[in-house]
Amino acid sequence: MKILVINAGSSSLKYQLFDMEKEQVVAKGLVERIGIEGSNLVHKPLGKEVLTVAEPIANHVEAVKLVFKALTDERYGVIRSMDEIAAVGHRVLHGGDKFSASVLINEDVKAAIREAIPLGPLHNPANLMGIEACEKVMPTTPQVAVFDTAFHQTMPPQAYLYAIPLSDYRKYKVRRYGFHGTSHKFVSARAAEFLGRPASELRIVTCHLGNGSSLCAVKGGKCVDTSMGLTPLEGVPMGTRSGDIDPAVLEFLCDKKGMNIKEMLVYLNKQCGMKGLSDGLSSDYRDLFAAAAKGNEIAATALETFAYKVRKYIGAYTAAMGGVDAIVFTAGVGENNPIMRKMILDGLEYLGFRLDERKNLGGGDAFEISTDDSRVKVLVIPTNEELVIARDTKALAIDKK
Amino acid sequence: MKILVINAGSSSLKYQLFDMEKEQVVAKGLVERIGIEGSNLVHKPLGKEVLTVAEPIANHVEAVKLVFKALTDERYGVIRSMDEIAAVGHRVLHGGDKFSASVLINEDVKAAIREAIPLGPLHNPANLMGIEACEKVMPTTPQVAVFDTAFHQTMPPQAYLYAIPLSDYRKYKVRRYGFHGTSHKFVSARAAEFLGRPASELRIVTCHLGNGSSLCAVKGGKCVDTSMGLTPLEGVPMGTRSGDIDPAVLEFLCDKKGMNIKEMLVYLNKQCGMKGLSDGLSSDYRDLFAAAAKGNEIAATALETFAYKVRKYIGAYTAAMGGVDAIVFTAGVGENNPIMRKMILDGLEYLGFRLDERKNLGGGDAFEISTDDSRVKVLVIPTNEELVIARDTKALAIDKK
Repeated sequence: MKILVINAGSSSLKYQLFDMEKEQVVAKGLVERIGIEGSNLVHKPLGKEVLTVAEPIANHVEAVKLVFKALTDERYGVIRSMDEIAAVGHRVLHGGDKFSASVLINEDVKAAIREAIPLGPLHNPANLMGIEACEKVMPTTPQVAVFDTAFHQTMPPQAYLYAIPLSDYRKYKVRRYGFHGTSHKFVSARAAEFLGRPASELRIVTCHLGNGSSLCAVKGGKCVDTSMGLTPLEGVPMGTRSGDIDPAVLEFLCDKKGMNIKEMLVYLNKQCGMKGLSDGLSSDYRDLFAAAAKGNEIAATALETFAYKVRKYIGAYTAAMGGVDAIVFTAGVGENNPIMRKMILDGLEYLGFRLDERKNLGGGDAFEISTDDSRVKVLVIPTNEELVIARDTKALAIDKK
Repeated sequence: MKILVINAGSSSLKYQLFDMEKEQVVAKGLVERIGIEGSNLVHKPLGKEVLTVAEPIANHVEAVKLVFKALTDERYGVIRSMDEIAAVGHRVLHGGDKFSASVLINEDVKAAIREAIPLGPLHNPANLMGIEACEKVMPTTPQVAVFDTAFHQTMPPQAYLYAIPLSDYRKYKVRRYGFHGTSHKFVSARAAEFLGRPASELRIVTCHLGNGSSLCAVKGGKCVDTSMGLTPLEGVPMGTRSGDIDPAVLEFLCDKKGMNIKEMLVYLNKQCGMKGLSDGLSSDYRDLFAAAAKGNEIAATALETFAYKVRKYIGAYTAAMGGVDAIVFTAGVGENNPIMRKMILDGLEYLGFRLDERKNLGGGDAFEISTDDSRVKVLVIPTNEELVIARDTKALAIDKK
């Protein structure tokens, strides 16, 4: 049985086709520049040649049709007909406070995703386009929405409330939502499995560190706090996002730089983070490590600043949970950068672990990087958001039928 | 030998006259509504009746003259002539990145305080008025500036840098400065003394919790991080200040509420914090505890939210220092509210202490509230910013001569 996973952006559409018997990706690809000159599809079928199609793709319906054409193509395809796709799972950014789990899509669900557009003004409309395109092309196939925010809906009020007037929280739903929920859920569950202990007994800090980064405090299998907020701008510094900052800086810099608040938000999302800290050098951690290795002190300070702010969140979430049993690294930087892991962990040994420097250089699926005798376990666990979406989709659209 | 301590606001002037032999306050008072209808002075001499003067006070020079008149008054005075005042110490809010310690005031110092006005637009001009008024009235008496920011100037770059373009940090000096420095310095030094251990060996988290609140990580006697930032808006929620918030909330609420960025900053400074969280009930913790005791759940959640956010900072600063030896509570709430202390500490026992509930109800000068066998000591230490200002003033203006 096959499940298609879709992640639709405003002008892009990523997809993975899963064979759920083996939980294996049999094809994946990306449609780019939808509705823009130069649109194209790159399709990567398992065990076959890559297919590249460069042709005008006017909208998301066209994009979905092209994906199906590729999936069923005689030479590059992996299925014979669209009927083989049992269900489609969609990544949806913002579920507001309506969804604490994935859900089978119907008109009410679409209305709720539409309602949350003010909270996710860039992503939610694109996610809806992806959903509606699939409905058009395959009207009888069940579809499921998997929300980036859902896992975090278990946070208690003291974690999700900002200290603003309660009336504005109620009226405008201004609160912490958190993102990367699918990833935090997956790696925290995988950590419990790896440790052979029930999730209900564990206090885990999950560090999803990539181009976008967030941390999550997972207690008894449930999110109790996370670093991203109303939007993905809050938290630790990211590739080009500032993360936490004195809110008064916005007024100060608007005034100095002659910007309005909208321009300031673009600045904080696009010009800040590692790119800003490194004086424009790069938003990519690999570039910064390469520069630091050659003696670039600005790059070195930028990296240490990132590590320091992540370290403080680990300390804060340990306090939030009254202790910690495991720290988990995942996503691009978290999975692949042992030097950054070491920098972050340096000084946290008081929590009850020692870093095994040799193990830290390891790789593969889930692995431990703390010493065997460490009371607190430090793990590296590759995330797989698409697999979670596929599993949730199967569970809701197939197994529950 | 007498030292006069001045804290000048835009329309107010607080003062304390110290006898430095006994470090005793021999008179203190407050001039209010300077330059506004209804100006008045309340003067409280030690062991004498309170003097209240209600008369027009046009400016800070008039205010200082009136203070001297009261100090030397036959009935309400405590000195015979102004010559008995050996030096004057001024509280100054913002020293920018120029001052890491108190300093004898000269033209260069005044210029630097003036230069930092963009960073402290409300306070620095008022502080300067206080200084210049004293210069006019007592031109030969040495004067010292004691900065709220100075103690925090030892922070390393990873703590004071925001993840914004480095060029904007350099050009506009946008960074974390921190405030309440005089208080954090005083109580951390007093904690070392109380514990009978050299400050150089200790890692202390100081919690200055009052109407304005900030935390500080003090390692080896030096500040390595603090929760207030470019301005006193950042950090934990305060009486009416929001503290930390997703910077994207500012744009979101400007849009929803039809505010510009200046109005938004007034909102975040005046309408938020405990007042906002409690749905407008009160910015005063005593009112909120009274309401919570009567079953008001909104007040109870507001208090727990405050406690939770302070708790996370304690965890974060422990991570920043690689461990903690002492946690110190000070200022209005920190010194006088055992229930709030208990709420904050609840769940932090993994750091290495147990709360002694009986001791927590104690009072007086410095006292311990952790059990005798606790490895990490939890202390309550009344702050005394005026005494630090008087001591610094004596050291710079008298002892160094």
